[in-house]
Amino acid sequence: MSLLVVGSTAFDTVETPHGTATDCLGGSGTYFSLAARLFTTVRLVSVVGADFPGEHRKLLQDRGIDLTGVESKPGKTFRWHGRYSSDMNSRETLDVQLNTFGDFQPKIPPGFRKTPFVFLANGAPTTQRSVLEQMDAPRFCVADTMDLWIEHQRAGLLDLLARIDGLIVNDDEVKQLTGKANLIQAGRKALELGPKLVIVKKGEHGCFLFSNFFHCALPAYPTESVVDPTGAGDSFAGGFMGHLANCDSVSVWNMKRALAYGTVTASLTVEGFGVDRIASADRETIERRYQELQSFIASV
Amino acid sequence: MSLLVVGSTAFDTVETPHGTATDCLGGSGTYFSLAARLFTTVRLVSVVGADFPGEHRKLLQDRGIDLTGVESKPGKTFRWHGRYSSDMNSRETLDVQLNTFGDFQPKIPPGFRKTPFVFLANGAPTTQRSVLEQMDAPRFCVADTMDLWIEHQRAGLLDLLARIDGLIVNDDEVKQLTGKANLIQAGRKALELGPKLVIVKKGEHGCFLFSNFFHCALPAYPTESVVDPTGAGDSFAGGFMGHLANCDSVSVWNMKRALAYGTVTASLTVEGFGVDRIASADRETIERRYQELQSFIASV
Repeated sequence: MSLLVVGSTAFDTVETPHGTATDCLGGSGTYFSLAARLFTTVRLVSVVGADFPGEHRKLLQDRGIDLTGVESKPGKTFRWHGRYSSDMNSRETLDVQLNTFGDFQPKIPPGFRKTPFVFLANGAPTTQRSVLEQMDAPRFCVADTMDLWIEHQRAGLLDLLARIDGLIVNDDEVKQLTGKANLIQAGRKALELGPKLVIVKKGEHGCFLFSNFFHCALPAYPTESVVDPTGAGDSFAGGFMGHLANCDSVSVWNMKRALAYGTVTASLTVEGFGVDRIASADRETIERRYQELQSFIASV
Repeated sequence: MSLLVVGSTAFDTVETPHGTATDCLGGSGTYFSLAARLFTTVRLVSVVGADFPGEHRKLLQDRGIDLTGVESKPGKTFRWHGRYSSDMNSRETLDVQLNTFGDFQPKIPPGFRKTPFVFLANGAPTTQRSVLEQMDAPRFCVADTMDLWIEHQRAGLLDLLARIDGLIVNDDEVKQLTGKANLIQAGRKALELGPKLVIVKKGEHGCFLFSNFFHCALPAYPTESVVDPTGAGDSFAGGFMGHLANCDSVSVWNMKRALAYGTVTASLTVEGFGVDRIASADRETIERRYQELQSFIASV
């Protein structure tokens, strides 16, 4: 089944201990799409400026990503500039220019409105809700969010959480959202806010999945070569949602497999600057890493 | 097969967000023994002062722990006083009184020298080596260490690492030991220092096991009730070594099972102040949590 994502398209400048990459293709919608297209048909809804080059558009289209919903506006594309700490576990934003993304009002093309699987990448809760209102009863809708909205648009976020099926956040975000320092308590508490599914990403420490029926955890894929962590979370979401959409199933079995696929797509993204590694990945690489990840888990 | 541990016996005063416990039975040797006795016969080598009460001795003996190697000296027992942060992920030492533990020179009773499984709890590398020299070719010897020895007795520690089979450390320690910020790189690098096995404990994030033949990872048991993290690492080591000694096997299969048993014994320890929870645990509880942990792992 097809999968729709609403998120940003950006130019990222990234400084890591491995070097600096300037104005590389980035954005939550981009990373999500490039991971999810390894599993299913992806429809991207986003906005770019007049400076967005044809080569980037071609890179996405060549990988089967439907750009009908990518609006092109006068002005510049969203720009982000960040610097990672030496252990890559934290980052500092040096500059943000929202540009055309600043007043992004997603318009879902009529042909996209019946898409059964939907991912609302990080954005203002009111904007995320406006997408939901344009969709025709999606089967499975998952959203991301961030500290900014948890702190400053809590009411809007809580309203959204009551309307979606799943929430994907990182460990700091779920603690902030629920006020619980213990991650297991935080996950359970987040479920009480509405979603049937809460996924907590912990970077190099893997992830948790909480639902009212089962809980589970997965270590991260053991990569030794973290070059640029940008987009890891969105690539994780792309692999997760991509697998579910491809199976057209949200069974416990497929949820667990989807966690592993998300873990694999995130591991590829971090091994290159920007989208270099995930854009060049193929399904064979995904399956090989999936099997390696299963072997890596000390389950007996 | 039997299992020998050389480590501390202590009185701990612990402050956590759940309250304060004063002068509770603690120490690395104690926590290790109370976890390991759930699997096999344990021989504790340690030192206590004249203030060590008969009731503590009885608690250990009633659980089948052989105290022949616990030396009683004039003076006071080792005392530690610490305070945990609100999220329990870090702690501050408020006071340490080494007392009789300050010049602890472990003497292995003759009847213990052929013990096949040996755990050297945290201590000066030279002291750990002196134990090895008293043992008669143990089959499998694992050591713990800490930042103090990595920084100030590096040569002695490297000498020890070349003589033991396994090292159990936490994530900060393996990074410090190897100079690698990436844990997978750090684990591999630690193997080059001598041990055939390196286990990295990550607290709430679970653990890694590195060997030259296989690597694996396990999430922590999903406990919601962390009351006092003191002794979690030593209880982990106790469950790990206890299972291996009980099977008399260090196969890959048993190593993986041992990781899970260590994870389970650590999860019990942190649910009570001091040794309360681990001392009252029985094998049925261990097996139930072992199965729960296997279900919790998103392996498909």
